[in-house]
Amino acid sequence: MTIFYNAFHAPIGAHSSFTAGCRGRNGGLGLELGGPADENLYIGMEAPEGGRFEALPFFEGAESESARYDHTNEGTSAEGLIKPFRPEAICRDFRLGEDKWKAGDLTFSIYSPVEAVPDPVGCSADQLKAVVRPSVLAELTLDNRQGKTARKAFFGFMPTGNPDALHVVDLDRGGVGICKGQSTGIFSDDATVHARQHFTAEDALREETAANYRFGLGGTALLVGTVPAGQTRTFRFAVCFFRGGIVTTGMPTSYLYSRFFNSLAEVAAYSLKNFEDIRRRAEQSDRLLGAAHLNDDQRFQMIHAIRSYYGSTQLLEHEGKPLWVVNEGEYRMLNTFDLTVDQLFFEMRMNPWTVRNELDLFTSRYSYRDTVHFPGGGNDHPGGISFCHDMGVRNHFTAPGFSSYELSALTGCFSHMTHEQLVNWVLCAAVYARQSRDKAWLADNLPVFEDCLQSMLNRDNPVAAERNGIMALDSSRTADGAEITTYDSLDTSLGQARHNVYMAVKGWAAYLAMERIFAEANQCELARVAGGQADRAAATIVSFMTDEGYIPAVMGEACDSRIIPAIEGLVFPYVLDQKEALDPNGRFGQLIQALSRHLTTILVPGVCLYPDGGWQLSSTADNSWLSKIYLCQFVARRVLGIRTPATGQMADAAHRRWLLQEENLRFAWSDQMRSGVAHGSKYYPRGVTSILWLEEEPDHTP
Amino acid sequence: MTIFYNAFHAPIGAHSSFTAGCRGRNGGLGLELGGPADENLYIGMEAPEGGRFEALPFFEGAESESARYDHTNEGTSAEGLIKPFRPEAICRDFRLGEDKWKAGDLTFSIYSPVEAVPDPVGCSADQLKAVVRPSVLAELTLDNRQGKTARKAFFGFMPTGNPDALHVVDLDRGGVGICKGQSTGIFSDDATVHARQHFTAEDALREETAANYRFGLGGTALLVGTVPAGQTRTFRFAVCFFRGGIVTTGMPTSYLYSRFFNSLAEVAAYSLKNFEDIRRRAEQSDRLLGAAHLNDDQRFQMIHAIRSYYGSTQLLEHEGKPLWVVNEGEYRMLNTFDLTVDQLFFEMRMNPWTVRNELDLFTSRYSYRDTVHFPGGGNDHPGGISFCHDMGVRNHFTAPGFSSYELSALTGCFSHMTHEQLVNWVLCAAVYARQSRDKAWLADNLPVFEDCLQSMLNRDNPVAAERNGIMALDSSRTADGAEITTYDSLDTSLGQARHNVYMAVKGWAAYLAMERIFAEANQCELARVAGGQADRAAATIVSFMTDEGYIPAVMGEACDSRIIPAIEGLVFPYVLDQKEALDPNGRFGQLIQALSRHLTTILVPGVCLYPDGGWQLSSTADNSWLSKIYLCQFVARRVLGIRTPATGQMADAAHRRWLLQEENLRFAWSDQMRSGVAHGSKYYPRGVTSILWLEEEPDHTP
Repeated sequence: MTIFYNAFHAPIGAHSSFTAGCRGRNGGLGLELGGPADENLYIGMEAPEGGRFEALPFFEGAESESARYDHTNEGTSAEGLIKPFRPEAICRDFRLGEDKWKAGDLTFSIYSPVEAVPDPVGCSADQLKAVVRPSVLAELTLDNRQGKTARKAFFGFMPTGNPDALHVVDLDRGGVGICKGQSTGIFSDDATVHARQHFTAEDALREETAANYRFGLGGTALLVGTVPAGQTRTFRFAVCFFRGGIVTTGMPTSYLYSRFFNSLAEVAAYSLKNFEDIRRRAEQSDRLLGAAHLNDDQRFQMIHAIRSYYGSTQLLEHEGKPLWVVNEGEYRMLNTFDLTVDQLFFEMRMNPWTVRNELDLFTSRYSYRDTVHFPGGGNDHPGGISFCHDMGVRNHFTAPGFSSYELSALTGCFSHMTHEQLVNWVLCAAVYARQSRDKAWLADNLPVFEDCLQSMLNRDNPVAAERNGIMALDSSRTADGAEITTYDSLDTSLGQARHNVYMAVKGWAAYLAMERIFAEANQCELARVAGGQADRAAATIVSFMTDEGYIPAVMGEACDSRIIPAIEGLVFPYVLDQKEALDPNGRFGQLIQALSRHLTTILVPGVCLYPDGGWQLSSTADNSWLSKIYLCQFVARRVLGIRTPATGQMADAAHRRWLLQEENLRFAWSDQMRSGVAHGSKYYPRGVTSILWLEEEPDHTP
Repeated sequence: MTIFYNAFHAPIGAHSSFTAGCRGRNGGLGLELGGPADENLYIGMEAPEGGRFEALPFFEGAESESARYDHTNEGTSAEGLIKPFRPEAICRDFRLGEDKWKAGDLTFSIYSPVEAVPDPVGCSADQLKAVVRPSVLAELTLDNRQGKTARKAFFGFMPTGNPDALHVVDLDRGGVGICKGQSTGIFSDDATVHARQHFTAEDALREETAANYRFGLGGTALLVGTVPAGQTRTFRFAVCFFRGGIVTTGMPTSYLYSRFFNSLAEVAAYSLKNFEDIRRRAEQSDRLLGAAHLNDDQRFQMIHAIRSYYGSTQLLEHEGKPLWVVNEGEYRMLNTFDLTVDQLFFEMRMNPWTVRNELDLFTSRYSYRDTVHFPGGGNDHPGGISFCHDMGVRNHFTAPGFSSYELSALTGCFSHMTHEQLVNWVLCAAVYARQSRDKAWLADNLPVFEDCLQSMLNRDNPVAAERNGIMALDSSRTADGAEITTYDSLDTSLGQARHNVYMAVKGWAAYLAMERIFAEANQCELARVAGGQADRAAATIVSFMTDEGYIPAVMGEACDSRIIPAIEGLVFPYVLDQKEALDPNGRFGQLIQALSRHLTTILVPGVCLYPDGGWQLSSTADNSWLSKIYLCQFVARRVLGIRTPATGQMADAAHRRWLLQEENLRFAWSDQMRSGVAHGSKYYPRGVTSILWLEEEPDHTP
């Protein structure tokens, strides 16, 4: 399998990434982008015989800009002065906190720690600064012990993007950087490293006049070191990102890191000064995935997914208070709620306060109240509270009560996800409250839970006696349309919210969670209502079991598809420590048995398995979300106990092959796959659902 | 001739432009760009029969981004819902302060005043704010007096550029805007106008559900008004630009306008509130070019050139003091000195303080001292002060004493322009001091003039007795290369500085200027030296007159080309009111007669006239700079009295045709032309040399 895939090497909360690994001009230093920066990267060395250069293959031949100024003289061509290493000569070691390439005498590593973000309220400035510094580190080693002459080593880039100039920056206390405007830069504090800027990397390397090293019109810059014959030397770099001032519209916020840093140079000086510590933390990050029960394909996907998640994270500050945003990969929507609920498991493990932070903003600014109606119109019933699909897009916070995504009068993509986001709030809030033991927050939010329960009831049936635990009414915000689910570009089997078995099981889990919350709060009547709804939901779902052993995707409507995410909601009783609800012989035994049978029935080739063993979420649509597959794999194995090649190794291998398909290499980790090719949700944060796999350690098995 | 050329509609000092006029996706709202923003512009109306729309042809069919989110449903196509008006149905009235299109029932005007920038030191905040507000205005009138139904009118765009979101902004005191991030936006305070945002303009116009008007994922936005049947209505807009905070690297500066405005919305509110006043000032701008002696081709080129100049202007603030920058068109170098000297005439007319401001920064930060040598190396002699080619590029101020452009060890493009910039400082400073009557500044700068004189002497010959008034030594900064001139991409005829007749005449003018400055300062010895050098320069130049009646481009070296800019330097005695030096029978009569004969000899087809009557600056290179042609036309007619079709109407018509060549339409006003096609220096500010033509009013003839 190829080693030439892009990966994120991202600071935490800086919405940026030094993306590298894919051949060609497909990586670079991206700040607030929904894809790679498309910059040439030059990471290389002088060849042993001298005079020509070899580099990792992360660039394309760049045409010299010289011709724009001087169209009469074409200049002498230096094409071919830098040759990419032969692919076979390169090996790569891809870990969670370190990504390392070796080729010939060159070793290049990028360090990006994966670690908890401390709650900015209450932690020390030093602690916070160490984690949110917007940089990743790199090391380049050139082993010239066999060399007869001194050889150059270099690391640089040809930036794209904003209209500000590439330029060289000298650090106050020693060191030098090559910067694109005020936003991205590569720095070294090695006294033997110097900067070169020219039209092309070739021009820079063959420049013999030191006075010309800093050619201001040059669009390419390198940091260059020299290794004497017979020696090995390692050069250290910090790859830095920065955006100061107000960075969002709609609601003005700044990056929280701008509390600590005023410029790229300050980020660089701090990062280089603390190089040892940051590298050590990066190396320690690998421990997270050390568990022996993970196979290589799982570990690869987890590393990839976690890295991708961090590129989308954005720790902002609004009126002095932290504001945590996860951007939606290529789409860059802010805190898309149906991603939040899936990233929940990862954030609860790493930094639970971010979940609370997201929930609070959904409640205070991104909730709304509606009325509801049965399909066909001509009726209007009380609705209640729900939450927006997202909080905005591309650094713009939408108006209170409105997402950037949802439109009225639709039945497909871009319609409202009112019911799903309502359920998502309940589930996220329940998990946060339970796992964090934040009793004060729970007490404050009991009224919201109560509103949510009423809202869910109203979406089941306006008449209490006729409720069956399942959503049956669409929000008035859809007008004559209908609500959809997070599977927005799928067919009706997963795209329609109403009567959907995927939604129904998540709804059941939400009722179940609320039953305990209200019971523990001595709100007995509310607990009874919630519990009753859970029972009804379970009974309704079970009642639709077919003779063939599956539950149709949309129960009681004209959609007979078979869908894997029917089992997805079972994850919540598991993480909420309501294991008794998952007992095949317990209160919901029939539901558990039915869903177990459902999965066994459909997880077969031609229904919900692709020929390669990959999972097809719906029998009627060639469109699978890897993040959701990871989650459902966990449920299948850990909750339902179905441990087969189809739920494990065979699927893992197939999904890894998907990510390594030629078409997908550029986008690091992507979510939506059609027959293994990413067609949407590229460069995406949601794959951290795979963190659940850590729960499967054999010694943790009950 | 086509009316579909791009023109700048630029605020003053905001380095931005609402560029429009070229067909296709070639215009838009550009902030700090070296070319058009490449945005679709939608300026149109509902067709009389309703249901479909007609617009000015400033857009291309845009593919809907919908497919990125929803790849299973292709959506219904609305292609063809908006049709461009037929080209023949459109007329355009292109003035200095107003640009107006009419088509069918639609009239659309853009207002951008051309006016003096008051010196920020000493003027009132209100005065300054009125001029430097970063906006231009627009008006759209729909005449629906014949209409049977209400019809929509719209103005909007599909922005490109920075990764921030397009979004709708409601103004605090009424009004609405469509904004790209924090940087560009179109606003209206008309209570009947509303905003629509969607994937495409077609989607926006056919959207029937008001709840969907503000679709956050949409990449296109329109402001939409409605005109009732039987009525005419005019909608007002402000097209606004904004960049807050520090905007430059190398030396941190902000836009001066950020003293007054904190956001696009504040710019918009102010601009709309003062709409009447700003429009009136725009209309009054036209008076500048009202002089009856200008022909239409001249007036067209002047309007175009002046508009282009303003798009490159950037009024910054550094440590509380104003800093005036003119960016170099597509190249965006800051205050390129060989442009400053040509833009001098325009800035002296409009706002002389900007010339002083530029000169002071050249002296304090962008001067240096060198040694000099005769060609061939192996010799080194005292040099002296000179000035950098530029102050940086693309919002980056280079280090003190260094330009972004100049490299060592070259003989062509990107070599140093040491002598030329030295002469340029003397000439600009002399003109500023003379025309502004700023005696305090002159007194302060006398030592700099003295340094400049010594530096010029040293570049003539280290031995006083052997001086001939002409530059003969190259700067040590060129190492083994040679100095070039502003004609950097031309052949040796204008590209080489040493012994160049173009440089020689400018040098003569500089000596002459210093002779008087020193004389007036009672520095008799310096005046004598300067005057002596002027005499020597004149004698040397005259001595190279050939029998054929021309002076070779490079005197005494192997370059026999014939060049028009030999006469360029004569403009300085003219504007310095040293008319006696231009008397064909006076002290420099031989020089004046020689140059007059030179021009008459070469300004013939096949030598320095293109077949179409356009001017070819050098007989040996197909590369002509329009800005320099304008200047030399002025010298030919006004100073040398050569008023023929070749120096006037025939040339003017040819040059206008050049600008209107298909390939050039996109770049508004461009400078460097090869056989009439712009090959460099596009979208350029330097054409304001044409302001000199105003000096030719018959009633001003001596």
